[in-house]
Amino acid sequence: MPATITTASGATWEEVAADRQRHRDISLASFKPSPLNLPTGSIPVDTSAIPRSVLAAQDVEITEKNVEDLVPMLASGQWSAKTVVQAFMRRAALAQQLANCVTELLPEQALKRAAELDDHLAATGKPIGPLHGVPISVKEHIMMKGLDSNAGFVGWVGRVAEEDAHILQILWAAGAVFYVRTTQPQTLMHLETSNNLYGATVNPYNTTLTAGGSSGGEGALVGLRGSVLGIGTDIGGSIRSPAANNGVFGFKPTALRLPVGGWALTMAGADHILPTIGPLCTSLEGVLLFVRTILHASPWLKEPSLIPIPWKDEVKPRAGNGAKLRVGVIWDDGVVRPHPPVAAALSQVVEKLRGSDEIEVVDWQCYKHDLAWEIIAKLYFCDGGAEEKAAVNASGEPFRPLSKWILEENPHVREHTIPTLWKAHQERDAYRASYAALWNEQGVDVILCPVGPGVAPKLDTSRYWGYTAQWNLLNYPAIVFPTGAKVGRDTPGVRVGAEDLGTHEYPADYKPLSEADAYNYGLWKDNGVQGYDGAPVSLQLVGRMYEDEKLLRALDVLLDAAGLAKTC
Amino acid sequence: MPATITTASGATWEEVAADRQRHRDISLASFKPSPLNLPTGSIPVDTSAIPRSVLAAQDVEITEKNVEDLVPMLASGQWSAKTVVQAFMRRAALAQQLANCVTELLPEQALKRAAELDDHLAATGKPIGPLHGVPISVKEHIMMKGLDSNAGFVGWVGRVAEEDAHILQILWAAGAVFYVRTTQPQTLMHLETSNNLYGATVNPYNTTLTAGGSSGGEGALVGLRGSVLGIGTDIGGSIRSPAANNGVFGFKPTALRLPVGGWALTMAGADHILPTIGPLCTSLEGVLLFVRTILHASPWLKEPSLIPIPWKDEVKPRAGNGAKLRVGVIWDDGVVRPHPPVAAALSQVVEKLRGSDEIEVVDWQCYKHDLAWEIIAKLYFCDGGAEEKAAVNASGEPFRPLSKWILEENPHVREHTIPTLWKAHQERDAYRASYAALWNEQGVDVILCPVGPGVAPKLDTSRYWGYTAQWNLLNYPAIVFPTGAKVGRDTPGVRVGAEDLGTHEYPADYKPLSEADAYNYGLWKDNGVQGYDGAPVSLQLVGRMYEDEKLLRALDVLLDAAGLAKTC
Repeated sequence: MPATITTASGATWEEVAADRQRHRDISLASFKPSPLNLPTGSIPVDTSAIPRSVLAAQDVEITEKNVEDLVPMLASGQWSAKTVVQAFMRRAALAQQLANCVTELLPEQALKRAAELDDHLAATGKPIGPLHGVPISVKEHIMMKGLDSNAGFVGWVGRVAEEDAHILQILWAAGAVFYVRTTQPQTLMHLETSNNLYGATVNPYNTTLTAGGSSGGEGALVGLRGSVLGIGTDIGGSIRSPAANNGVFGFKPTALRLPVGGWALTMAGADHILPTIGPLCTSLEGVLLFVRTILHASPWLKEPSLIPIPWKDEVKPRAGNGAKLRVGVIWDDGVVRPHPPVAAALSQVVEKLRGSDEIEVVDWQCYKHDLAWEIIAKLYFCDGGAEEKAAVNASGEPFRPLSKWILEENPHVREHTIPTLWKAHQERDAYRASYAALWNEQGVDVILCPVGPGVAPKLDTSRYWGYTAQWNLLNYPAIVFPTGAKVGRDTPGVRVGAEDLGTHEYPADYKPLSEADAYNYGLWKDNGVQGYDGAPVSLQLVGRMYEDEKLLRALDVLLDAAGLAKTC
Repeated sequence: MPATITTASGATWEEVAADRQRHRDISLASFKPSPLNLPTGSIPVDTSAIPRSVLAAQDVEITEKNVEDLVPMLASGQWSAKTVVQAFMRRAALAQQLANCVTELLPEQALKRAAELDDHLAATGKPIGPLHGVPISVKEHIMMKGLDSNAGFVGWVGRVAEEDAHILQILWAAGAVFYVRTTQPQTLMHLETSNNLYGATVNPYNTTLTAGGSSGGEGALVGLRGSVLGIGTDIGGSIRSPAANNGVFGFKPTALRLPVGGWALTMAGADHILPTIGPLCTSLEGVLLFVRTILHASPWLKEPSLIPIPWKDEVKPRAGNGAKLRVGVIWDDGVVRPHPPVAAALSQVVEKLRGSDEIEVVDWQCYKHDLAWEIIAKLYFCDGGAEEKAAVNASGEPFRPLSKWILEENPHVREHTIPTLWKAHQERDAYRASYAALWNEQGVDVILCPVGPGVAPKLDTSRYWGYTAQWNLLNYPAIVFPTGAKVGRDTPGVRVGAEDLGTHEYPADYKPLSEADAYNYGLWKDNGVQGYDGAPVSLQLVGRMYEDEKLLRALDVLLDAAGLAKTC
């Protein structure tokens, strides 16, 4: 393979981007037999039905299994690791053409790894670990040894990882096969996925919408089932936004439970708000398996910033025996009212929960979510965004619109001194203490809420982070799940799933709650339900800090009670 | 009581200090019958035998019990809470005269509380909680509602706490009686206890030596058994130095296990190195009871920065069944060689451990402890010491020698910018990861090491923090225990306990390991064994992060194997 072209060695940013795309295309083409190339211009706005219509039956069968189905088939040798990863590579190559979500395919190393696993099984009769042969897709900035790690910055192209990220080492030991790397936005700080290396990753259900971000490559890829299990990262919604936008499960654990060592990113050493890592997955069971596998490896022994709380299998979702699961509902956060499709889906789900003997529903009283955003936004870029800007400027590449928005149009960004930083820490800690008191008072087990102020937004319009960043500030675990509903489907007209949106439409004389709400309201007025046609509608369940196991089990109970699927 | 005199209302710092001393003396005198006043000039250098010789037999009997003895006697009503706290108040008043360790006695509130507890027991037949009637002494900057909280700064006198510190609320609910508050140094950042309000707290075993610090008031008070259980705080050795210097148990837990809300201190919001809170105690069992009681109250529900790891009763000190406890020994840290009494005591203990079937002893290979000090010292005062200096300068009080030393003569103090701060965080995290790898490699259960570069130092000479601050940087729990040996005792001459120091003396041609070692060597040369006569010799046992329970149980095994007492 030719040497990587970089701005450091004199190339323009456009030349670097063209070379990265070439590299990606070569990686896709190197997989034999070469993946099907869809004729240009043949792709509809809703691409979601395409893979099933063009892939071979066995490939469809394999890629539409979930992790928990694949594991026993791989462990027993019913399907070889090679067969499985080949199917996923074909579907991932297709997904790239539909949603622009892949930075490179890894056929050589994936097939070598699969052969190793198949040989091991043949020789010993035993799987190598709990994820024997499971293909896992990985967001690009989670470093892989020997591969470029540019984190979405043109100027960082050419930085080659010296070793695998810690989490990949653990998953490798458990039997995983890494076969594809996925896109992320410039700065990693968008709730979309748009950079100057690859352009924008789009939503497979409606390509005029964003796949979300920053783990948008994972979102689109898992949404198209070019992956059943992918790894994303989240400091403000970056796992949950793409999971929601693509109708898959996405879990942001409590920070410092899963290993975060080995990422390419700016602002190393900034621990004011902690980033998290977690799965995007086609099933709740797959999420559980992922987390359990990693915690069973005691990652805190190698990475001492982690909290040594082992996976707890025995945790019950409810406080007492026979007690109901007490769910607090956030209809809106007092800052931005969610678009009608989200309100309708939330209403449908809550109605079903109210009919369940297992669940008690109460309204959650939000506490100053606008202040929460101010506090977290003040702590994201404590150097005033200097490192982010330097990383962009290193190559001369332009700022993408949402980079400009979060760094320059965001009034809360400031260059801190030590005294202002300490003050901001105190505000953060005081807010957390207030919210803890609120939780003690309201006594819920979990909170059910929107994932964002609407379904997948139009490109470059994802500006309101409040519904996800709130839980990063508080460091509460949160999981996104699909409701199964899609905007405008099932019956024609302004509907979500089977429900007419009429009762959830904004009143004619609607007065926005805030400037952010006015913007969000404008998006709905401008685009209407037709503008979001086909977008999956997802919701978010939030637990208390470190109650990750309880949260995941509570979701299981909730999905049963609401009659929703645990797979997508 | 007259209004507090403060510099804010125009008084000089000397007037404020005089008023604080007057306030203290009034508080002591208000306890009836007034405590014995020792005639001036009658106090020998070693004061430790005085309380027993001047107190009434019952007071001696009560105050020489340990927490675990007091608890059942109080719970059964054999001794009333009133009788017990009166005995401790008398002994604390005496301790003040011997070691200058008290900021105020609280007879009124303590007797009211004791009466309440006695009434409760009489009415219900049941103790109010696991610490029913146990008197607990408290370092001054741990805030008590309605009382002055000056943290050792003259300029802060007059700041009155609005509520009790979180830990006090929990102990109160468990039945504790707060009866005395104790001294701390100016800035709280000395390993001694010297400020301009009260002067220096001295060592009861040799009043030419320091009681240690910053929880030196607690150290001296517990050393004299004016308290059986006191609360100190530690960010570089501040529980362990006074525990060691006064021959008592002192436990610094892993940070974020015990509640730290409600302290008077500078640099609020600075979380680069986390402070800890913990007990100084006359028994290991008392330490266990303290920690267990607090964790049973689930303090993380109120204080969300805490890690919700409940107290684990079932933890075994050793990895496997029947496996030996593997103890790594640090003879010296490669930076400063401990004085002969410490080397001798460590050697005696290790020799006994080597003879035990329960223990395997190995030499611990230290990793750059000089770098560790540089890293932590760089993170203590990220504003270059501005807040500390402002708090001193607010009153015009002079800097105490060790304030000057840590803030101005310490070459690692710097005013950080955000980029230099992030770099310092990265250095900290990299060091922690290296040490975790070292622990994985060497595979010990605990580390046995000195607590400092000698026994209790001469006043104003405690400059080397390495033996304690090392474990704050790493956030490893550490407990100090008395070896029972005292410098120069048992037989005349240059001895520690029964061992001749000869073999541990510095060689005639000793070459110091570092500048700090040269200073420490000079202290020994200048003062000799006679200069430290009577000082208790203590050691430190260190566990891995969050393995607090394992550490405490390991100490139990180790004390048995070494034939050492679990009380002092």
